[in-house]
Amino acid sequence: MRVLGIDCGTERTGYGLIESDGTRHRLVAAGVITASREEGLAARLRIMAEGLREVIGAHAPDSAAVEEVFYARNASSAIKLAHARGVALLALAEAGLDVGEYSALEVKTSVVGYGRAEKSQVQAMVQSLLGLPEALKSKDASDAVAVAICHATHRAARARIAGRACC
Amino acid sequence: MRVLGIDCGTERTGYGLIESDGTRHRLVAAGVITASREEGLAARLRIMAEGLREVIGAHAPDSAAVEEVFYARNASSAIKLAHARGVALLALAEAGLDVGEYSALEVKTSVVGYGRAEKSQVQAMVQSLLGLPEALKSKDASDAVAVAICHATHRAARARIAGRACC
Repeated sequence: MRVLGIDCGTERTGYGLIESDGTRHRLVAAGVITASREEGLAARLRIMAEGLREVIGAHAPDSAAVEEVFYARNASSAIKLAHARGVALLALAEAGLDVGEYSALEVKTSVVGYGRAEKSQVQAMVQSLLGLPEALKSKDASDAVAVAICHATHRAARARIAGRACC
Repeated sequence: MRVLGIDCGTERTGYGLIESDGTRHRLVAAGVITASREEGLAARLRIMAEGLREVIGAHAPDSAAVEEVFYARNASSAIKLAHARGVALLALAEAGLDVGEYSALEVKTSVVGYGRAEKSQVQAMVQSLLGLPEALKSKDASDAVAVAICHATHRAARARIAGRACC
């Protein structure tokens, strides 16, 4: 299964595509959609939507996932982020993709085994799980791949549970 | 000038179109795009985006406006609302519309003359300013028209100020 993970942002949106059977993961593509700081929010959201549509069109994922918005510290930043997340959810819905939603805690627990892991630890584990010669340079792209790995792992676990339940 | 005002929501999005010279306003259309509670957020955002594109296509506004997200009371609701607002800003940017952004305080001050006005007072003033025989039934639609009136008024004022400054 091909899984797209997205790390939303109004200026930098990371994306990561993996092929996964739920246990072994292979990197297909990863990168960052960048919208200039000079543009207004609406223009940045448009660049982001166009970029995501291109990624979806080029790589045809089977499923997708985004992180939930966390707002314990800064409601203003969370609200800004939620604008971008709304646009990401729209792009995924318009592509007919089902969307997994996970908290940062779930993503880190799934990838690193520890919910309070540092970004650099996530980056190192993403590299290790994908068998890459070096870590992905962009943390946004790496975080997006982490979301994809989390989703692939959860989907496989849910399928196994459902399989056991029915047999 | 034809102005579109939007009152964003993840389940009910009001819209209102007026023809205005900045002082006199005429109602062109108003309504609500409704997304069922049963759907997930991504699906609701899709319905909202489709509805807004239809409204823009049918009525060809020259300019548009949305309210800012207010989050003093409930960050969780504000974050949910921001998803919808992001999608609205995207739809407007994709239609090539410039977008005015106003706080609820500015909209109420512009329409009622008092920033802490009740929703029913806004509804009554919208009716009065548009010369309607009765108030718009939907408060979401009425709020959207109020945003459009606020934008039309501000644009005209800014144009007058710019005119004075240059002469």
